[in-house]
Amino acid sequence: MHFTSEQRLDDGTLERAFVLDGIPGILWTPASAPVPVPLILLGQTPLGLGTMYPRLVGRARRAAADGFASAAIELPGSGERPRRAAAGQARAEVRRAMQAGEPVGEETVDALILPLVDKAVPEWQAALDALLALPGIDGPVGYSGGVISIGVRLAAVEPRLAAAGLFAGSLVPRAIIEEARRVTIPVHVLLQWDDEGNDRQAALDLFDAFGSKEKSLYANMGGHTGVPEFAGEAAAQFFDRHLK
Amino acid sequence: MHFTSEQRLDDGTLERAFVLDGIPGILWTPASAPVPVPLILLGQTPLGLGTMYPRLVGRARRAAADGFASAAIELPGSGERPRRAAAGQARAEVRRAMQAGEPVGEETVDALILPLVDKAVPEWQAALDALLALPGIDGPVGYSGGVISIGVRLAAVEPRLAAAGLFAGSLVPRAIIEEARRVTIPVHVLLQWDDEGNDRQAALDLFDAFGSKEKSLYANMGGHTGVPEFAGEAAAQFFDRHLK
Repeated sequence: MHFTSEQRLDDGTLERAFVLDGIPGILWTPASAPVPVPLILLGQTPLGLGTMYPRLVGRARRAAADGFASAAIELPGSGERPRRAAAGQARAEVRRAMQAGEPVGEETVDALILPLVDKAVPEWQAALDALLALPGIDGPVGYSGGVISIGVRLAAVEPRLAAAGLFAGSLVPRAIIEEARRVTIPVHVLLQWDDEGNDRQAALDLFDAFGSKEKSLYANMGGHTGVPEFAGEAAAQFFDRHLK
Repeated sequence: MHFTSEQRLDDGTLERAFVLDGIPGILWTPASAPVPVPLILLGQTPLGLGTMYPRLVGRARRAAADGFASAAIELPGSGERPRRAAAGQARAEVRRAMQAGEPVGEETVDALILPLVDKAVPEWQAALDALLALPGIDGPVGYSGGVISIGVRLAAVEPRLAAAGLFAGSLVPRAIIEEARRVTIPVHVLLQWDDEGNDRQAALDLFDAFGSKEKSLYANMGGHTGVPEFAGEAAAQFFDRHLK
């Protein structure tokens, strides 16, 4: 991991861009931290770090204010990274089905999501190795938002993850719902009830499948991008309870 | 409405028992309130005010600490009030179905709940008339918890209600789900996902039916009586947002 740039945001948060095995990422750490701080991994969407930056930095500032470091890495096939060949075809089929008002077929969901999960999760784990080796960053580790299937797999396979705050706003393969049964860490799931592009029943099935003793589903209105401020607050309180 | 007793709780909350048209009730007001305070109606279960008192007073203390008056009245057929003849038969059938692991029939749910709603809602409205006429109590008014079907009907028909915090932990007639479409005030619904005696799908159908622009569903684990503390906190924040 090597850092390529560094700046102080106006709230004192330190923002450092890095590259790890060719994958770009950003690390944010609180203005002043007398002791090593817990870490929240910020999941994001295939729109890419550049496009997602305004929203990511908002989440990172909030995390820093709450006493957490946070980090994001570019997803496979996003931003400057080489496109995934198979994904283009699956994405075109999703678009076609949605425009036609048809449900997206299971094979298409699998083709779009499963290879992404297979590639992204080991990359998150390698990033975790590097991030936890830095001075000033320590466990416990949380995962927050982004493509929910990546969060589910990571929560199922990565023992260093202590809590997952997930956003049920993307298509979920049946195989991922099965994997959720192996998740035992506390899980907080945000669902936008009136998110028209989302499969609500799959989100409910996924929530039901989590094997966690503590799991919460917070469903609200406002469409895909309209998560109300109080729901963001509840997610922040979730990480406060479990990472401190 | 006449008051029959009065005591100060150790936190300064004033607790007054009252009787209104033969119906017993309790009113709690904050220790000191320089201006009239908003009111939260505390719904409860057919177990009766006496049995429910420890839980009610906990909710009332919290409401008082947050700057709200709160009140509870005895449900029809509960406590010292005459039993409802038809309810006994329906309740026996519910018990039988649950012990046999069968779903409770729609007719039984209707027979148990609808007459209770028909009788309880006008009683709440009469209590509201009397409570809002007292010095020191003013709107807006919230309704919280108890038999959810009563809360739904009250939210649908009572224009003085500004927000409803409901607990999806009791059987819901299909007719009440239809009535929920007419509810437009903000609604916050708590659901215990692993509440084995409850019909989860009916709770989800009910939530979906609410016509409110702002509605939230907060589902958690812990069984019927195990609502986690942070969920109680979120409900308190909901009333704070809408009654102040």
